[in-house]
Amino acid sequence: MSSKWEELAADKRDRLAKTIPSEWKLQRLPDTSSAFDYLKTSGVLSSQELEITESSATDLVADLATGKRKSVDVTTAFCKRAAYAQQLTNCMLEFFPEAAIAQAKELDAYYEENRKPVGPLHGLPISLKDQLRVKGYETSMGYISWLGKYDKEDSVLTLLLRKAGAVFYTKTSVPQTLMVCETVNNIVGRTVNPRNKAWSCGGSSGGEGAMVGARGGVIGVGTDIGGSIRIPSAFNFLYGIRPSHGRMPYAKMANSMEGQETVHSVVGPIAHSAADIRLFLKAVLTKEPWKYDSKVVPMPWRQDAEDAAKAKIEGQKLTVGVYNWDRNVLPHPPVLRGVEMVSEAIKKNGHKVVPWEPYKHAYGVDLINGIYAGDGCTDVYRDINASGEPPIPNIKDLLNPNIKAVDMNKLWDIHLEKWNYQMEYLEKWREAEQQLGTELDVIIGPISPTAAIRHDQFKYYGYASCINLLDFTSVVVPVTFADKNKDVKNGKHQPVNDLDKEVQAEYDPEAYHGAPVAVQVIGRRLSEEKTLAIAEEVGRLLGNVVTP
Amino acid sequence: MSSKWEELAADKRDRLAKTIPSEWKLQRLPDTSSAFDYLKTSGVLSSQELEITESSATDLVADLATGKRKSVDVTTAFCKRAAYAQQLTNCMLEFFPEAAIAQAKELDAYYEENRKPVGPLHGLPISLKDQLRVKGYETSMGYISWLGKYDKEDSVLTLLLRKAGAVFYTKTSVPQTLMVCETVNNIVGRTVNPRNKAWSCGGSSGGEGAMVGARGGVIGVGTDIGGSIRIPSAFNFLYGIRPSHGRMPYAKMANSMEGQETVHSVVGPIAHSAADIRLFLKAVLTKEPWKYDSKVVPMPWRQDAEDAAKAKIEGQKLTVGVYNWDRNVLPHPPVLRGVEMVSEAIKKNGHKVVPWEPYKHAYGVDLINGIYAGDGCTDVYRDINASGEPPIPNIKDLLNPNIKAVDMNKLWDIHLEKWNYQMEYLEKWREAEQQLGTELDVIIGPISPTAAIRHDQFKYYGYASCINLLDFTSVVVPVTFADKNKDVKNGKHQPVNDLDKEVQAEYDPEAYHGAPVAVQVIGRRLSEEKTLAIAEEVGRLLGNVVTP
Repeated sequence: MSSKWEELAADKRDRLAKTIPSEWKLQRLPDTSSAFDYLKTSGVLSSQELEITESSATDLVADLATGKRKSVDVTTAFCKRAAYAQQLTNCMLEFFPEAAIAQAKELDAYYEENRKPVGPLHGLPISLKDQLRVKGYETSMGYISWLGKYDKEDSVLTLLLRKAGAVFYTKTSVPQTLMVCETVNNIVGRTVNPRNKAWSCGGSSGGEGAMVGARGGVIGVGTDIGGSIRIPSAFNFLYGIRPSHGRMPYAKMANSMEGQETVHSVVGPIAHSAADIRLFLKAVLTKEPWKYDSKVVPMPWRQDAEDAAKAKIEGQKLTVGVYNWDRNVLPHPPVLRGVEMVSEAIKKNGHKVVPWEPYKHAYGVDLINGIYAGDGCTDVYRDINASGEPPIPNIKDLLNPNIKAVDMNKLWDIHLEKWNYQMEYLEKWREAEQQLGTELDVIIGPISPTAAIRHDQFKYYGYASCINLLDFTSVVVPVTFADKNKDVKNGKHQPVNDLDKEVQAEYDPEAYHGAPVAVQVIGRRLSEEKTLAIAEEVGRLLGNVVTP
Repeated sequence: MSSKWEELAADKRDRLAKTIPSEWKLQRLPDTSSAFDYLKTSGVLSSQELEITESSATDLVADLATGKRKSVDVTTAFCKRAAYAQQLTNCMLEFFPEAAIAQAKELDAYYEENRKPVGPLHGLPISLKDQLRVKGYETSMGYISWLGKYDKEDSVLTLLLRKAGAVFYTKTSVPQTLMVCETVNNIVGRTVNPRNKAWSCGGSSGGEGAMVGARGGVIGVGTDIGGSIRIPSAFNFLYGIRPSHGRMPYAKMANSMEGQETVHSVVGPIAHSAADIRLFLKAVLTKEPWKYDSKVVPMPWRQDAEDAAKAKIEGQKLTVGVYNWDRNVLPHPPVLRGVEMVSEAIKKNGHKVVPWEPYKHAYGVDLINGIYAGDGCTDVYRDINASGEPPIPNIKDLLNPNIKAVDMNKLWDIHLEKWNYQMEYLEKWREAEQQLGTELDVIIGPISPTAAIRHDQFKYYGYASCINLLDFTSVVVPVTFADKNKDVKNGKHQPVNDLDKEVQAEYDPEAYHGAPVAVQVIGRRLSEEKTLAIAEEVGRLLGNVVTP
């Protein structure tokens, strides 16, 4: 006999399965490990559907804004591809294609009548991580105990995207608690990587990673407190931005450890190109999010900063700091090669590359780990235990309920440590600029020690989380794919700690063969315009390939 | 026999007294309650010294930048006037005129050699609240236990002001703990109002209020977590800005409850005019504080925002919300009259004035009071008890050591309450704009329920602190002076609570006669350019009188 929580989970899975129209249902799962290949080649999508879903968002909104395309066609195509992506990767927690198509029809009618778009995202479907509230739908965030609660209002970002003309059709899966970089929960189970079901899609915005990776979505919205936008972007060969805190509105979303403000989770887009990331950010900023969410800085898109970065790029005047490891956990050979590729591409184009010495990253990683568990994990265990469901395996290791909560004075000490660390990092940046006699435009390094990883193997969050602690802007750029012929096991590295040893030992050239490899382009706090422009250029220099 | 802490305090007072050159010493205290009048009329200052110290900072830096004045003259004049201000109001904790004059001579030499200023504040003396660290001097912040510790480095703001060309000569007194709006500590005792020693100079930046009020300084630097810049500005007929958090660098300053980040203390200038406030802010921003202090938003002075506000002012197109009480504690008659004067002046000039309904201010005030005491006052009592000194009377009431600290999950709940309250306030602002069909440019209301208050009577912080909770930008504008003939006791008000009754009962037309009255001009978060421009206009419309 199944327990109450298992019944609730089964009921949710049933309800979710029923949202897929029968004509979009696979009779049986295809014999392939790659949803990505299947969707392109199996013929389940018409050539028009393929054309739409493989367009850029930038092109789609241009066509929607001029009446060349109808939202109902675009929305239907993405709903259909999303339905297949769901069946192949298990990436959803909510799906509402009927409502989406109705919304699309309304937008088309508006266009018909007014001959103009309602906003910069007119008619474009956008997929949402299951933290964003959409009026009328559940936000379970992977907790059984949250099932059955229907949202009475939109999150601020949902509201503003809606005003900008976006269409909503799905909310994607997340790991229980959101605090890990794989995507497993007790409601729908595990989400897999569309390129290879043996690999993780990353997390916590892993449903978005898989959905956008499979082109069931063109832009997906994720959140990031320790890599949760950037890891799924990296593992799915996508671009993703972790904006600095205060740039995008997080208000009225669901969250774990709500009210924790020592390190803020941030919200941002995952997409196939830097241009589509920019489209999203600019669209949201035109809606003046600071008038809704008090945490958002009143800073419209700074075209001057973007233009200045582009002028520097054209003039071959960039100075880029590069590091290939953080002195705490050495990346696998494919990642080291990826960083080297980026470095060479930048140099070859006439820009300057200088080595960056990562400043006390191990210290930063320890500090942020203490912050995550500041309440002794009371909050997450309350929500897990409310239904009787067990913690997922990754959580048991990471968020130990025996950790003691810190008291207020200890918290204040941690705040000072964080502030001092951030300022020391800025000092290193200034010192480098003084030595160079010029601006250090960005820093590039790994985002994860591994390419898209095998399930249950994700162990080291530090490449991502240290940047969260610093609140730097970071954009993930897809670079290449692991190659068993090029990326041979590293026999020479002397591990500097147990985790380093463990991560290195996990490398298997055969298992990783073909897995996406990425880097992150890091700019100072609230430098989205500049950092994104440089990330875009890095992608361009690499050939910006989207398929292997 | 005196105790150890009393000896330490006496030693500090001795050392401080010795910093005043004998030629600037008063043989006996004059028989006047007004340092302000005495400094103007007694002849202790030469006409040149009066001219310099009664100039605006804007004029002084213009003259210093063109070589029309020497920093040594300006600095000496302010040091001398500050020395007298100290003897009459007891406003200092540190004084170092010799070092200041030496610094001024270096700047003059630089000018001589390079024929240009080192920065936008070249040669201008700036007085600092005793939270800012100046390399080589003590920062006691009014705690006996902190005496004798000499700073090894500048605070970030000190460093940037220094780079901008400012000269330092004094650090001014504060109340023990900084958490009250009067200025009393066990080291130097009480600072009094230069206009009448029976009145408070305000607090916690009360030393700055008295110093700049007496024109011993032309711009003073204060901090504000619940009114501490704005109350001293109001009580001394000065302008003062509470910038929003993240605009000015607070890093590496001393503080009470360091690391408390639920409501940030902010740093900003106190001055005789809005123009001088602007001079200070712009000067600091040219030094890119965000490259030093990670909490500062990378937002240079937005000239476009200032220009847009000025165009609206010229076009008589402002829409101003006004409230004269917060529905929690009714202001005294002089303050109600002051708000009315402002309202009439704005209307008369063709702008629109609309009533503003203060949204749940009493709730906001309760919320922020809980935040101040979040650690159960452990932090402040540790620093008080370290020397054995007693708490000052105001502290005993406000910061009760029996208050229980909140735990982490309760703190997170408070964070959510704060965020929600801020957003509801923004919603009210948006709703008002929707109803008006136009932007609501600023809101104007009282900054304190009283004019400059008699000692030990300051009881209600809510007019100031609610704005801290909202993190709105707020500029204090001096309005008028209490007048026993116009401001008769209010017999009709039905008190809404005990504090309301107590505050109202304290009003005495005779005792308050002549006391400065001010309002605050409130803009949305990080709206310094616009809010300051409107505050400047309000001052201009009022006649911007500096003397009664």
